[in-house]
Amino acid sequence: MNTRIAIIGAGIMGADHGDIISKELPGAKLQVVCDAFEERATALAKACGDADVSTDPYSVIARKDVDAVIVASPDHTHAELVMACIEHNKPVLCEKPLAPTAAESLKIIKAEVACTKQMVQIGFMRRFDQSYREMKSVLDNNVIGQPLMMHNFHRNVETPAADFTADMAITNSAPHEFDVARFILGSEYKFISSFSPKGGNDKVGPVFMVLETQAGQLVNIEINNNASYGYDVRGELIGEKGAVSLNSPTYTTLDLKLSKSTQYAQDWRARYREAYRRQNNDFLHFVQTGEFSKIASNSWDGYCANVTAEAGVKALATSERVAIEYAQMPALYK
Amino acid sequence: MNTRIAIIGAGIMGADHGDIISKELPGAKLQVVCDAFEERATALAKACGDADVSTDPYSVIARKDVDAVIVASPDHTHAELVMACIEHNKPVLCEKPLAPTAAESLKIIKAEVACTKQMVQIGFMRRFDQSYREMKSVLDNNVIGQPLMMHNFHRNVETPAADFTADMAITNSAPHEFDVARFILGSEYKFISSFSPKGGNDKVGPVFMVLETQAGQLVNIEINNNASYGYDVRGELIGEKGAVSLNSPTYTTLDLKLSKSTQYAQDWRARYREAYRRQNNDFLHFVQTGEFSKIASNSWDGYCANVTAEAGVKALATSERVAIEYAQMPALYK
Amino acid sequence: MNTRIAIIGAGIMGADHGDIISKELPGAKLQVVCDAFEERATALAKACGDADVSTDPYSVIARKDVDAVIVASPDHTHAELVMACIEHNKPVLCEKPLAPTAAESLKIIKAEVACTKQMVQIGFMRRFDQSYREMKSVLDNNVIGQPLMMHNFHRNVETPAADFTADMAITNSAPHEFDVARFILGSEYKFISSFSPKGGNDKVGPVFMVLETQAGQLVNIEINNNASYGYDVRGELIGEKGAVSLNSPTYTTLDLKLSKSTQYAQDWRARYREAYRRQNNDFLHFVQTGEFSKIASNSWDGYCANVTAEAGVKALATSERVAIEYAQMPALYK
Amino acid sequence: MNTRIAIIGAGIMGADHGDIISKELPGAKLQVVCDAFEERATALAKACGDADVSTDPYSVIARKDVDAVIVASPDHTHAELVMACIEHNKPVLCEKPLAPTAAESLKIIKAEVACTKQMVQIGFMRRFDQSYREMKSVLDNNVIGQPLMMHNFHRNVETPAADFTADMAITNSAPHEFDVARFILGSEYKFISSFSPKGGNDKVGPVFMVLETQAGQLVNIEINNNASYGYDVRGELIGEKGAVSLNSPTYTTLDLKLSKSTQYAQDWRARYREAYRRQNNDFLHFVQTGEFSKIASNSWDGYCANVTAEAGVKALATSERVAIEYAQMPALYK
Repeated sequence: MNTRIAIIGAGIMGADHGDIISKELPGAKLQVVCDAFEERATALAKACGDADVSTDPYSVIARKDVDAVIVASPDHTHAELVMACIEHNKPVLCEKPLAPTAAESLKIIKAEVACTKQMVQIGFMRRFDQSYREMKSVLDNNVIGQPLMMHNFHRNVETPAADFTADMAITNSAPHEFDVARFILGSEYKFISSFSPKGGNDKVGPVFMVLETQAGQLVNIEINNNASYGYDVRGELIGEKGAVSLNSPTYTTLDLKLSKSTQYAQDWRARYREAYRRQNNDFLHFVQTGEFSKIASNSWDGYCANVTAEAGVKALATSERVAIEYAQMPALYK
Repeated sequence: MNTRIAIIGAGIMGADHGDIISKELPGAKLQVVCDAFEERATALAKACGDADVSTDPYSVIARKDVDAVIVASPDHTHAELVMACIEHNKPVLCEKPLAPTAAESLKIIKAEVACTKQMVQIGFMRRFDQSYREMKSVLDNNVIGQPLMMHNFHRNVETPAADFTADMAITNSAPHEFDVARFILGSEYKFISSFSPKGGNDKVGPVFMVLETQAGQLVNIEINNNASYGYDVRGELIGEKGAVSLNSPTYTTLDLKLSKSTQYAQDWRARYREAYRRQNNDFLHFVQTGEFSKIASNSWDGYCANVTAEAGVKALATSERVAIEYAQMPALYK
Repeated sequence: MNTRIAIIGAGIMGADHGDIISKELPGAKLQVVCDAFEERATALAKACGDADVSTDPYSVIARKDVDAVIVASPDHTHAELVMACIEHNKPVLCEKPLAPTAAESLKIIKAEVACTKQMVQIGFMRRFDQSYREMKSVLDNNVIGQPLMMHNFHRNVETPAADFTADMAITNSAPHEFDVARFILGSEYKFISSFSPKGGNDKVGPVFMVLETQAGQLVNIEINNNASYGYDVRGELIGEKGAVSLNSPTYTTLDLKLSKSTQYAQDWRARYREAYRRQNNDFLHFVQTGEFSKIASNSWDGYCANVTAEAGVKALATSERVAIEYAQMPALYK
Repeated sequence: MNTRIAIIGAGIMGADHGDIISKELPGAKLQVVCDAFEERATALAKACGDADVSTDPYSVIARKDVDAVIVASPDHTHAELVMACIEHNKPVLCEKPLAPTAAESLKIIKAEVACTKQMVQIGFMRRFDQSYREMKSVLDNNVIGQPLMMHNFHRNVETPAADFTADMAITNSAPHEFDVARFILGSEYKFISSFSPKGGNDKVGPVFMVLETQAGQLVNIEINNNASYGYDVRGELIGEKGAVSLNSPTYTTLDLKLSKSTQYAQDWRARYREAYRRQNNDFLHFVQTGEFSKIASNSWDGYCANVTAEAGVKALATSERVAIEYAQMPALYK
């Protein structure tokens, strides 16, 4: 029988999850679409087949005919919804962030530890992206020797909202970089320094962070939410013998008007579509077998992203190098 | 209810189809795997879930619980199997070639025309490939003006079999290029000239063809089955105002030992995996709705590839420019 | 003492030679600038220092204070001027073509042979281009095994003149490709086939040629004088083990408006500036030492280009594969 | 008459200067080669024609038949030699650094100011590199809007000497980046933070610096002297509307053994050969006309590099963000 999945939140991310489940994920069934706006839930349910519709996430999580939950609702609702999933023993894939603060993520960790089993995956889908996987494989196979530095560049055409702040570049955009760099290097962060250039317009400028890991590596991150020219994620890992970079796959090159060009996407969706598919397939396998893969991120990873972001915000405010201090990692996540 | 599909032929291509159907195509169910070698059929059925196994393709085609058929058996069996599908009113996706000769393809066309509806798709999956789709879109949107030339390069690491000949480069490998160039340009071929360089080893060398279309364009095709360095498909379309080229998506770049490099695949599977998925999804939609998409290729396309290949073989043997002459296209395919 | 050079022809090519001699070639002195239009000669002489000015090329060639001559005048004047240089025992670097026909080139060869020494270099500067040199080195070092095919693409923004014809694409533009491919492969041509697509506008379209060498290789050449999008020369040499391609060096990449782009030049000058400098330096060394380098092209090479072009024009007119037949090569050129 | 130049220091850099002057710089004459090791001076003089040889730089600077001097001797000798040039009223092109410390550079500046004219250029040849020039032109033409960040990466195969230290990465390698970023942005630095990752081997690791300019931009610099994989200089300038990156020109691409590759150089010489030629040509023009170009760097630029490097060393030692404070710039350099 197909695994019955409920999606909570029928915005852009929820719609993508619904699309993947209904069109690319045999073995999964979209059972319920839940959104505070019923029309939006109805529209998504219709687009994805014949799922039920709801506006009450807690009743959805409690439904017996729901095997697993994907949380794609507004950020501030994540923590409570994930807690409800844990209470109802429903495996949950939660879009980042797990919670707005490290303290709240720790509460979820406590609840999950009390269950004595992992129930939560975080939507750090970059771990499943082919480019990052090849980068990790190059490192793990010792092709480039020991890692020294990782450069990460995250650029959006423009900020997602008018009230987006430099702090949000750290708390909202950077967690993908915080997580994937830590995942690839296999090392925790120790210090963070944050910098922000000033431009001539009144848009939120880039934030540049230098993280030092416990193993002594540097992880540099540029978050540039008003890069204007396109959606562009770059990364390079430098080892003692060589280096490996992420490519942005493009499919054609155009020669026109004295210019040779490839195109940037407007946003992340084309670039990471396949990563989302793999992530959701991995989650499905987890739901079906109980086995938590070595790739997927968990609550602890969500917590680590919070801790790092909070230190990054402090570093930006103080122009100081701020220490990153984690709680003790419960044995459940080892 | 899921559409029940039988795969005939459990070799490399059949295995890929099985993998796609079972792992990436909600709405489809792999019902039967059929192969002359029972073990091979059994292995594939097991790898893809719980499909039935058979060694008799005709009984499989006849089964009431089979809604559609994918033919991925040895080339010489295609025509007869497709005929059986037509007889049993089963939509069929047939790997190229449709038949070994244009004459035999015409017989299938006759049978299909007698049905008064289209039933056959040919596995010219490149039409679904993102690079070719972007190329076609660039042309159709008049970005580069009227098309003048198309350069096509098809390179394999080595020939698939020891007894592979230069003629087979034309009849077996080139049809993908014949079809996709014709599809993109929207014009039929009029003449073909074939050339073959001689190398120092005793391997089958490349074949180079120059095709002239009825609209006056040139389509150049290099088929290089012993290119040795990697699987590599390239293409460029030159218009009056500009040009568009296919890229080979790569995911990382490696800097090592005074070299900056990206990797080639050993064969076509990674490059065209997504194209196969889209093609099979398109076929599924056809089976479910009866609507034949504007992208998918049909029997007539399979026949055109035969006619072109036969002229190409003659051109290679005679060192002459050979006319390409088609039968009258039945209204069914318009 | 500096070698005193006269430039005949103060058009674009002559101006570039003057610029190179006066600004980048220590050991050479621009002695005279000669042009039918005195103002043009004067302007160039002034731009390059204090050279004399003349409108009579034959008296310039005869001057005692002229050690060597560069012929950059209109094509139809080349042969006679080179003959005059031979008569006056002045080494000459002649822009291609050596002569308008193979028959006339043979006359020059006869005159040069009578001198019992080489006196003529042809301006096939691509032999000195870094990209072609690396390509040749890759081949000569057996990196890619025996050569099988060479693809050559020559694209201009637009034809240099309104009365440019498809035949001129073969006689005027293609000789660079004829020469450099033959130089790299070290093999003469045996057959040529020519094709020309028809476009929707009334501009001279591209010409596509397939040449078969005596050693059995294929040399394909696209001459596209109205490519519109930019000046673009591409080339690829395919061997039994691998392939090597020419790059077009670019210096920056621009990310703007959803596009990642590099720029094409409007014409050949930036791309081949360094090749011209090396060629002229090689010519200077020849004048100073009497040693004819292994890279530079000679009268025989100029003749071979004529023979090939004449066969190519015939092939285009007849749609037939035309044999390329050379006279016996004099021992002087071995 | 040719401008007579003396080269002091016949090591790698001196040899390159000699090569350029004698082979690519009409109007200049290599008059004397001076080196503490007479054989080395003699060898270079011979390779470049018929220059005189000396082991005493001060007498060379004093020679009446020397119009200008290029200082390419060991770093610690630069300051005294430049002072001698100023005393003898000889224009001098001094390889970086101008002096080992900011304090000593200030003394030179004082001496030069006392002359009431500029006499010193520093060998910051990147300002003349085509890639940086295009980058500056893109910025100056407002193609990418106001500048926000510049990323700079400098990688060598290995450190030039066994006793190379992380501090030397800042004082010896980074000045090229300090200078060119400041030149392109047209803004002075205000703060510097330095970081250094720890590797598994005992080689000097990379140093990563974040500089904040007075105008509020960020300039990030990676100096990686043991990058192992090749000589590689990268740079990217990010503006409010777009970004422009430096390319490393390559001339061929090789397809071999499942890999598509371009090659890195072993060191900087091929990459910057043309920049050195342009720089020396600019210096020659300065010597001949007395006009100091807007591109060339002067003593003040050399001093600024010292100040920045000293702050960078302090930042590395203290893990603190260090202020960069300059003396008052004399009017001579405005």
